Amino acid sequence: MRIAYQGEPGAYSEAAVQEYFSSVANESLFEAVPCESFDAVFAAVHGGSCEYGLIPIENSLAGSIHRNYDLLLRHQLSNDAPIVIVGEYYLRVRHCLISLPGVRIEEIHKVISHPQALAQCEAYLRRLGVAVEAVYDTAGSVKIVKEQGDRTLAAIASRRAADLYQMQILAEGIEDASAEETAAMPSTETVPATAAVPSTAANFTRFLIIATQPVIPNENAKTSIVFTLHNVPGALFKALSVFALRDIDLTKIESRPLVGKLWHYLFYIDIAGSIAEPAVNHALDNLREYALTLRVLGSYPRHNL
Amino acid sequence: MRIAYQGEPGAYSEAAVQEYFSSVANESLFEAVPCESFDAVFAAVHGGSCEYGLIPIENSLAGSIHRNYDLLLRHQLSNDAPIVIVGEYYLRVRHCLISLPGVRIEEIHKVISHPQALAQCEAYLRRLGVAVEAVYDTAGSVKIVKEQGDRTLAAIASRRAADLYQMQILAEGIEDASAEETAAMPSTETVPATAAVPSTAANFTRFLIIATQPVIPNENAKTSIVFTLHNVPGALFKALSVFALRDIDLTKIESRPLVGKLWHYLFYIDIAGSIAEPAVNHALDNLREYALTLRVLGSYPRHNL
Repeated sequence: MRIAYQGEPGAYSEAAVQEYFSSVANESLFEAVPCESFDAVFAAVHGGSCEYGLIPIENSLAGSIHRNYDLLLRHQLSNDAPIVIVGEYYLRVRHCLISLPGVRIEEIHKVISHPQALAQCEAYLRRLGVAVEAVYDTAGSVKIVKEQGDRTLAAIASRRAADLYQMQILAEGIEDASAEETAAMPSTETVPATAAVPSTAANFTRFLIIATQPVIPNENAKTSIVFTLHNVPGALFKALSVFALRDIDLTKIESRPLVGKLWHYLFYIDIAGSIAEPAVNHALDNLREYALTLRVLGSYPRHNL
Repeated sequence: MRIAYQGEPGAYSEAAVQEYFSSVANESLFEAVPCESFDAVFAAVHGGSCEYGLIPIENSLAGSIHRNYDLLLRHQLSNDAPIVIVGEYYLRVRHCLISLPGVRIEEIHKVISHPQALAQCEAYLRRLGVAVEAVYDTAGSVKIVKEQGDRTLAAIASRRAADLYQMQILAEGIEDASAEETAAMPSTETVPATAAVPSTAANFTRFLIIATQPVIPNENAKTSIVFTLHNVPGALFKALSVFALRDIDLTKIESRPLVGKLWHYLFYIDIAGSIAEPAVNHALDNLREYALTLRVLGSYPRHNL
């Protein structure tokens, strides 16, 4: 069983492949296949060189990855081998500060990593008082530190990347707690003061597992859909009524502006439930009455954190 | 009038400052002030060294920038000088391939830029058959090409960055038309075949203008709110009813997962209308009955594209 992912060995996507597939198969039975781009991941699954692909779709700090929604939509429409979502996985992203073995943290003068990782560790890096430089990916930054043999240089990447290159972890979990930013949001005047907003501290990336063969999960499932609506007041409200009136929970909703267009919005929605359930089926049939376009990207087992 | 933005001169944020403020003030009356980080932009406005700040909040291809929502929320809660949204601006992002003067495109062997810009020009770069390397920002990549004086190196940045460093534009508008990806989405079986999904081709970034003094726009306004709900089926539907039943249009909706928390979702919503309008005021009062927490980030004139 071959699973395509974007990045180099040691990338967070590879960690997600290991964690997800080791829960469903013996480690000797699957192989994580690195790809240069998200397009290459889809091409590998579409062309059949990999049975599965794994792509990041949203990060709790950085937001949705629209690019991968575009690719899902494009490949879902392929006539010969449409690609569907068959699973999801939430990976806890814990950044490590990684150096050559034997280096003390006081020796570090510069830290390199992917811009996103640097941004997520901004407060930590500022306290450390080091220079920062962006490189193309997290695992690659560890490779650079190793190759350069520079004791004043450190990388930010996963624990796995450190292990892979036999490097030293100086600190783990160095991402800024965005907790401080939203945890303090007070309640409105009309609700009890105890109802504070919970913190968004945790840095999770949600990955989707894609394949050409759909799965039909029975219980504890999610279904991902994308649709467009006429741009009139109340259109979304009407569309959501098909779920609310059947007690179907939404687990994600996002509007994507189609700037300068007659119909302005594309909606990404995940609902709790499988297309094997009559209520979900009826709701989708009902939604087709309102939606200009509607595509089901897949029904798959839900990952409960 | 001083306006803080994140990035170097020539950054897309600086272009947004120029375009937005030149429509409301004489160019000699305002100064764009570069800041190292988004935090620094908020700090400049909060501390009073800049009257306004300008921050990117969402990109039509890349999605929302949650980090800036966090900062808005944190600073909106400040007791001494809360920060509010006072305007919005949609900037059309057109990437240019930029080289030393006199270089021909055939001479280019490597292209450098911010990873996001490289990703948005992926198809173009592949056709060009060049190596790519990520650097920290778009305008900075032009500076590097100039400083290195390397005729085989090109940068991807704005037209303004090219002008600023007196460099040559080899090609303009080189971003991939994501049109090819979603334009072909066919209609559902139940709607006419003509109702195809419009293309998402255009690469726009939406910026927010922030200040410590709120504005109260009268007409053609938008209001941005953030709220949390009890995680029960139908909760969002109920919440949206306060707008739908008053014919108030939504211009953006996004759920943000709060992973591993008792209440799972934070919602970002923009509505058409000003808090000066009774209907909007009543809707927000009504929403406070359902929401665990609700904050109004600002009411401001709408940018009509």
